[in-house]
Amino acid sequence: MTDNAVNIGLIGFGTIGSGVVETLNMNLPLIEEKVGRKVNLKKIVDLDIKTDRGVEVDPDILSVDVKEILDDPEIDIVIELIGGYQPALNFILEAMDKGKHVVTANKALLAKHWDEIMESSQENKVRVCFEASVGGGIPLLKPLNESLAANNIQSIYGIINGTANYILTKMDEESRDFEEVLKEAQEKGYAEQDPTFDIEGHDTAQKLIILAILGFGVYVEQEKFHVEGISSITLEDIEFAREELGCCIKLLAISRITDGELDLRVHPTLVNEKHLLSSVNDVFNGVYITGDVVGPVMMYGPGAGMMPTASAVVGDCISLIEENDRPAAYGPVKTRVTKIKDIHDIKSRYYLRITAIDKPGVLHEISGILSDLNISIESVSQKRREEGLEVPIFIVTHESLEKNMREALKRIDELDMVKDRTIFIRLL
Amino acid sequence: MTDNAVNIGLIGFGTIGSGVVETLNMNLPLIEEKVGRKVNLKKIVDLDIKTDRGVEVDPDILSVDVKEILDDPEIDIVIELIGGYQPALNFILEAMDKGKHVVTANKALLAKHWDEIMESSQENKVRVCFEASVGGGIPLLKPLNESLAANNIQSIYGIINGTANYILTKMDEESRDFEEVLKEAQEKGYAEQDPTFDIEGHDTAQKLIILAILGFGVYVEQEKFHVEGISSITLEDIEFAREELGCCIKLLAISRITDGELDLRVHPTLVNEKHLLSSVNDVFNGVYITGDVVGPVMMYGPGAGMMPTASAVVGDCISLIEENDRPAAYGPVKTRVTKIKDIHDIKSRYYLRITAIDKPGVLHEISGILSDLNISIESVSQKRREEGLEVPIFIVTHESLEKNMREALKRIDELDMVKDRTIFIRLL
Repeated sequence: MTDNAVNIGLIGFGTIGSGVVETLNMNLPLIEEKVGRKVNLKKIVDLDIKTDRGVEVDPDILSVDVKEILDDPEIDIVIELIGGYQPALNFILEAMDKGKHVVTANKALLAKHWDEIMESSQENKVRVCFEASVGGGIPLLKPLNESLAANNIQSIYGIINGTANYILTKMDEESRDFEEVLKEAQEKGYAEQDPTFDIEGHDTAQKLIILAILGFGVYVEQEKFHVEGISSITLEDIEFAREELGCCIKLLAISRITDGELDLRVHPTLVNEKHLLSSVNDVFNGVYITGDVVGPVMMYGPGAGMMPTASAVVGDCISLIEENDRPAAYGPVKTRVTKIKDIHDIKSRYYLRITAIDKPGVLHEISGILSDLNISIESVSQKRREEGLEVPIFIVTHESLEKNMREALKRIDELDMVKDRTIFIRLL
Repeated sequence: MTDNAVNIGLIGFGTIGSGVVETLNMNLPLIEEKVGRKVNLKKIVDLDIKTDRGVEVDPDILSVDVKEILDDPEIDIVIELIGGYQPALNFILEAMDKGKHVVTANKALLAKHWDEIMESSQENKVRVCFEASVGGGIPLLKPLNESLAANNIQSIYGIINGTANYILTKMDEESRDFEEVLKEAQEKGYAEQDPTFDIEGHDTAQKLIILAILGFGVYVEQEKFHVEGISSITLEDIEFAREELGCCIKLLAISRITDGELDLRVHPTLVNEKHLLSSVNDVFNGVYITGDVVGPVMMYGPGAGMMPTASAVVGDCISLIEENDRPAAYGPVKTRVTKIKDIHDIKSRYYLRITAIDKPGVLHEISGILSDLNISIESVSQKRREEGLEVPIFIVTHESLEKNMREALKRIDELDMVKDRTIFIRLL
């Protein structure tokens, strides 16, 4: 073991930060043996250094002044865990300007300021590691970038939001309504009090941006692709999917090359029960990647949480120490811009749930609209209730063009006998 | 891009070697952009350079003389794909002595000569990469060693033999007998003409040795742990497991720490259908790893085959080029020897299939033996056929000590009314 210790500065002593401290408390001897050097958590900076985080920590290393990390020439690695855009961005850029490597779990920041951060990393010959930003503790980004480097990546399908996946899993397993399960998830701490970010797909979208950069070398702003959440999914959809189609419904991040274009989107998707992604349940995440050489692989594990995320953060620190002299982040230094597929141009099979008055001719009208738009029906199911009342009609289509489907939905929803907005979900 | 090309020498132009050539034919520009240097497959050596491998290759780079690689100072990386112990070992050691990095898929060699190879790597300050040796194209060994480096690994459960998994999957899905499915697997090329190595667990055992080195830093010779194959599994076992227990049967490589000892074994195991490993079907592999920080993660993908394995081999080459100045293999340089758990000391739940004459008292005798040995019965099932004929009795036990179970089996099989050797399978 060489004499010179590696000094780490941690900015942000919240949940993940406490997990990092706990990980070092647990496994420091193992880690030091692995890297062959002393590893020293020299300073922790947070606005609040009074609250007990439930982890053992030397009070002398706590500070409220970020300069004690950024201006300390002995600190080699800065871990940023405060999240958000600012001041996180400035802290990271300043750390790199001062020759420090950076480890971050900040998906929002990376998804918005990728090029700026990577340029600074190149200029300053330091590395940025961010395994924890997607998929929590799952070995995902580094394997995608390194182990699969011989591949032209064809597609990435990811279940990468634990909250949404927990809700969908519980609805399916326990035949319960969205609202009820959401409430339980909030009580258990699996969902925020304002759950919009998770259930409307925004968190998934930020992570998908990072996956697309690593998989395809393409940076796409969040506004440029289709993002749809799970709040319109009902128990009826889930039960029909399971019983009639042998599918479950998952919120998927999709990124793939079709017709030479990048097809990028986030939406609830019907996944056949035989597909491995259908077995990714509860708060777990799974990312299914297909390369042109390897074929399909999947990485699975806990996508969030204090200790799993800390596992990825500390793993990045270990990689940095071991590869100290390699002046690059993983991931492309500069992303290429290519054509992004318009959601209207994608092709998919579709599941529709139409809420209509049960009277003669309704199916005839609907099938006429679909037929006019070149959408062919694979199966249709309508459980008769009482004539004149509202009834759900379930339709599964063959592969069709999204823009035709959207036009069909518009026309269907304009029909007098259709009483609610039609739900449509794409099939994997 | 810097001027100096990286030169690669390939020893072994069989299936995987051809896959490597094909991978470079497909994705060389992508790979060169990634590493920022020209990558040149300078020489391919094989005893047979006449046979058409079905891949495009410059005939000028083919040779039958391994010295054209080992003695060429311009060659930076040697890929060894001839398999077996010798001359592979000598080629690898000579390449390292001459300052060349090594990439190999040779699990047998690593499982037997780990220390010798790693010592040479240390002495010569070159790296040895072997991602392809376990799990084919799945990003597995590098993520285990690097991304999970903050963890004290608790357990590794692997389905790492595609042939055995294919046979068990088909028996289950198509309700067919072992012999019949094996024959089909041989016809399809999924099983060798002599399938012993795969179906008796020897291949799985070699791979488990490598997983245990990376996960636990422990090298165990194959003779020192319990290895049991799948040839005694019948359709009856599989159907009972599915229908009565909600389980499937998988050939598992198990490596875990219990009571401070390393518990290492290969045997068919009942896996609950809710466990993700139960969804690893056909020729696919899956490895389920639990770390003390991250919790459980799983890596899944094609565990063998020309292109998937080539993906891992070429991925290793790319890592080597990118990390050229890091003088170590991944994995511990020197393994530690710790106490290995004796199979007799493990605890497990057990499934038993007893073949007995259906007459009064048989169950009484058997339950008496179990009770004497402190083995408690969780469930028992006997479908009555005709008194006086052979009937299978299925028993699932609570957690019991293996040595007691073995003694019980011995006593049960000595009973007059027991007509065939009792099958027992451990539950996951």
